[in-house]
Formats: sequence, C-alpha cells, structure tokens
Amino acid sequence: MTDVVLLAHGDGGALSHKLIKEIFVAQLGNPMLNELSDAALFSVRQGKLAVSTDSFVVDPIFFPGGDIGKLAVCGTVNDLAVSGAVPRYLTASFIIEEGLPLKDLKMITASMAETARAAGVQVVAGDTKVVERGHGDKVFINTAGIGFLSDAGSSLSYSRIKPGDKVIINGSIGDHGMTILSQREGFSVSSGLKSDCAPLNGIIEELLEGVDGIKFMRDPTRGGVATTLNEIASSSGWDVMLFEEKIPLRKEVTGASAMLGLDPLYLANEGKFLAIVDKIHAEPAVDILRRHPLGREAAIIGEISEGKSNVYLKTPIGGTKRLNTLAGAPLPRIC
Amino acid sequence: MTDVVLLAHGDGGALSHKLIKEIFVAQLGNPMLNELSDAALFSVRQGKLAVSTDSFVVDPIFFPGGDIGKLAVCGTVNDLAVSGAVPRYLTASFIIEEGLPLKDLKMITASMAETARAAGVQVVAGDTKVVERGHGDKVFINTAGIGFLSDAGSSLSYSRIKPGDKVIINGSIGDHGMTILSQREGFSVSSGLKSDCAPLNGIIEELLEGVDGIKFMRDPTRGGVATTLNEIASSSGWDVMLFEEKIPLRKEVTGASAMLGLDPLYLANEGKFLAIVDKIHAEPAVDILRRHPLGREAAIIGEISEGKSNVYLKTPIGGTKRLNTLAGAPLPRIC
Repeated sequence: MTDVVLLAHGDGGALSHKLIKEIFVAQLGNPMLNELSDAALFSVRQGKLAVSTDSFVVDPIFFPGGDIGKLAVCGTVNDLAVSGAVPRYLTASFIIEEGLPLKDLKMITASMAETARAAGVQVVAGDTKVVERGHGDKVFINTAGIGFLSDAGSSLSYSRIKPGDKVIINGSIGDHGMTILSQREGFSVSSGLKSDCAPLNGIIEELLEGVDGIKFMRDPTRGGVATTLNEIASSSGWDVMLFEEKIPLRKEVTGASAMLGLDPLYLANEGKFLAIVDKIHAEPAVDILRRHPLGREAAIIGEISEGKSNVYLKTPIGGTKRLNTLAGAPLPRIC
Repeated sequence: MTDVVLLAHGDGGALSHKLIKEIFVAQLGNPMLNELSDAALFSVRQGKLAVSTDSFVVDPIFFPGGDIGKLAVCGTVNDLAVSGAVPRYLTASFIIEEGLPLKDLKMITASMAETARAAGVQVVAGDTKVVERGHGDKVFINTAGIGFLSDAGSSLSYSRIKPGDKVIINGSIGDHGMTILSQREGFSVSSGLKSDCAPLNGIIEELLEGVDGIKFMRDPTRGGVATTLNEIASSSGWDVMLFEEKIPLRKEVTGASAMLGLDPLYLANEGKFLAIVDKIHAEPAVDILRRHPLGREAAIIGEISEGKSNVYLKTPIGGTKRLNTLAGAPLPRIC
C-alpha cells in the first residue's frame, strides 16, 4: 500500500474510489456525501439562498492555528455568514500534487471535518484531481458553499451605510497574514504568532439576532482591513475614518510587522469581520460580540463620514493619513 | 500594462480588482456577479436542489473541440443534468500560474461565457488565486453548480434499475480522452480527432420530457464507459452486458487507440451520457435522442441482466470478456 498520493488516485478508477472512501467519506461522510453520486440533492423551502466559492492555495499548508483544510471551510463559511446567510452545505474539491503524503491529506481532511462540525455545515459533494510532481504544490482546495438567508441577514446592504455609522471589528488584526509570512521567513514557533482562522457564523448569528442596526458586514481576508474598507468606501460613496489606537493588535504582530516592514492593516485575517453599525446600536453590538469567545477584543475602530470614498487613518497624535487599496509588493498564497 | 498574470493579480488588491473587472465581469457578467460581493444571493421556490463540483486540470488547456473553460462549464452542467436537475447557477474559481498570458485567460473566459449561454446557466460567484511559476500549471478551474430538480428528474435512482433494462448512449465514445492524449503525444491536427465536450442539459431535458422509463443516468467521464458502468453495476447489484458492435465509435478514435494500445471503453467522454431505460421505452428514447444535434448517433449499447455486479462485453463473434473498473496505467489530467 502506497503512503503517498499517486497519479492513479486521480484517474477516476479503482484507486480514486479507494481514496474517496478511505479518506474523504471516512472523515467527512454524511448520508448525502456517501451516495457518491454526480450531485448532492437536498430540499429547500421558499426563500433566499446565498452561494459563494473560494480556492485555497496557502503555503505552508500547515501553520500555527490551522491548516489549509480548516481555512477552506472557514473561508467559505465566513463569506456566507457576512452576507447574512446561515451556512449549511459545502462542496470540497482537491487538486493534489503527486507525492503528497496520505497522512497529510488525512490530517487536512480531519481538520475540515472538525471545522465543519463546529460551523454546523456538511460537505455534500466533492472532487479529486491529481497533477504531476512540479505542476501543483502539495494540495489546493476549493470549497463552494450554500446558505439560507436569515430574516435579520436579508436587510444587509452597503446602500444602508450612512455618515455617523460606526465600524466594528471582533478582534485583533493581521494574525493570519503575519503567521503565514513568519512561517515562510523561518521565524521560530516561539514568536507566539497564531492564525485567527475560525468559523464566524456562530458569532455573526448572535450579533444579528441580538441587536438592530447592523447595516453591512465583510471579512477582511486578502488585502486586510484597509483594502476591505476601501471596497466599502467605494461601494457606499462615503469616507471611512479609522482610529489607530482603537484597533486591536497583538504585540507579536506589531513586532513582526515592524521587522518585515509590513502594515498590519494590509495583512489577511481569517477569523475577523467588519460590521458597519448604526451609531446608537454600536455599543450594544460590541457588548454582544465580547460575550462570544471569538469577540473578546471586539471594538469600535472607526466611523463613516461625508466624503469621496476614501479611507483615512487617524493617529493618536492627531495626524491623518490616507489608506489606499493594497497595491505593490504582493503577499502571495496567504489563503 | 502587463500582458501576463502576475502574483499581484492574486493578492486581493488593486490589480486583482482590475483583472476581475476587465476579464471576468466583462465576459461572464450578470447582475449577480457584477455585485462582486462575498456571496451571490438568489430566490428559490420550495423544491429540491442539486449541487455538484469539479476541478479541471486538463493538459493542454486548449484542444480541438474545446478548452479548459468550456470543459469547466460542461463538466458541472452535465453532472447536474444526469442527476435530473435543470442547471441554473455556477461558481467559477481560478488557480492561475504566474506568467499565464492574459490573452489565454481571456480566451478561456470567453469560452466559458459562450458555453454558459448555450447551457442557460449564469456564473454568479467566483474567485482568483495566483501561484508562483512552477507551483501550478497555466490554469486550473473549479466550478460548482446548482440546479433545480425537475419532476421527471426527481425519480431517477439506481434502485429502479432491473434486469431487462437497456443501456443507451447518445453517441460515440472516447473522443475527448483520445483527443487530449493525441495532443500530448504530438499527433498532427490532421488526425481529425476532436473532443465531444458539450453541455448535455438540453438533450437530457428533451429526453426526460419526451419519454417515460428513464431510470438512471450518468456521464462517463474519467474512467470512461467501462468504469461508469461498473459503478452502476456495483450500485444496482445487477450485471451489465455490453454489445461491442453496437457501441458508436469514430474511426479516428479506433485508429489512435490501436496505435497507443488503449481501450476506448476506458477513455473519458465530456459530451456523452449513459441512460438506463425500461426496455419498452428504449427505442422511443433513442428516437428522441437522434432528433437532437448531440444525439445523432444515439444507440442501445447494452442491457442489464441478473448477476453479481459485473460488466461484460459481448464481441461480434460471440465471445464475452469481463470489463473491470479502470486500474493500472493512469491517464492523468484528462479533465
């Protein structure tokens, strides 16, 4: 029995079936996936659905706080959750480089299964392809997700954003991006850096059910908080003012950012979301977030103001600098 | 302005946005995709949905009869269609190797757009990642699809398959697989080989609406007709008997197969489906298929018989040989 993935694992024949049964079905199995049919079938009631997809190519595939499997579940779950949907079903598709140790694939799949359970979603359909050594990189995972729009979630729209609204985040920024970069740069594990990778649907459901005035949400992944806020500014037509001293930031991230010359506002997050909230509901919203394990450090970090779709950072000593969309030195394969 | 994909096209910043707008939205655009939000939202009525996903890593990415873009749309559309669903929405996710010419990406996206129009589906959500040169291979595409189960389609199940049922195919076998292999082996274009890559939802809808007695369908992609029939035999518990002289086969495929020592029964198809049909409805079903451009050469190629989940091929001179699931020399990256 081989202990690595072979090209024949991807040809649709006997070895493919063995891989699917012994790793994917064994760990992710449920009545729909176990059918191994061309499509998963499920019933829906009248309503609104949300669908999202992301491919994950993070390098390295294992990192402090997670791995590519956990990330692949969280990424799509979070895209659905910030859209106001309750995530329910995922598809998972693997592009594996010949030679990947089967034990790595098992660990990744186990991590997907654990994260899916935590998020309350089921993997109902999948696919496996294998590419020759040197034509891929260990493993790439695509997930697509389907969720049902909740009543509270169905009113989210950037058209509701108005000057005076507050910008809220559920915790510290830059943890995921800096963790991945530090792994590549060869920092020791003792840096204390750890990805924030987590499924956000639970905390977001509590927020939407607990308080009115949530107008819009997004998760600041690639490009970080600065890029996501630029998208919000651009879509809404208003300015966003960020207060530097209010932004939660771990000292490990501050230190590593200084060393590498990077700005945490542009680093990817995988367990954070930004909410634009009516000002009278902003404090109650933060209170709700802080009661959840993923929101202990939630804070109001900025506000919407009149303007021309720009994002500004106000420093503690009173200066103001403009934050543009990420451009320039790319940070590849962060997710 | 660069004419190839750069790592920065995948970092979620300004260049990513430009790529998305100028290539993906320009060609695949529709009101849902154009929102560029974290998830596409759409309304559904009470009923049953089908969801499917496939990643495409075909090499080469352009081939006679299609390209990876057309294939990525057809593959998922066909998986939904053989499941009895009317395909409606697709997601599309690209993993691009740094250095891919933008004109190639445009051609692939144009091909996806054209195929999606032909199939009556919309691409409603997407994602782009870029990996370093040598860590991917030109472009990999994942599609996930959502369809609505039709009344006629909702009764399909391998549990309905019984001895005496006929096995129908809508045309010649092995065209896609042999086309890809011949490209890699360096056959000249004058071989006349051409992929059968096509969206099958139209012809399948006509079949389901036109005749009763369609019990089960699958598309014989990776692993070919022999492997798919082994899955059907294994799931249903019956034997499948194939009649060699009834199987439509182009002479170009026969010739190339002999030369390469390959059996067309194990070669991938991307525009073919197998239907298991009650014997009294089999001839009318073939008549309906033959009226459609994708079913001109439709034929009854076999039948279900008592047995122990085996597949046999009956040769014209009366011999019988067992056809196993594909195992052995892999044919990688055929789709």
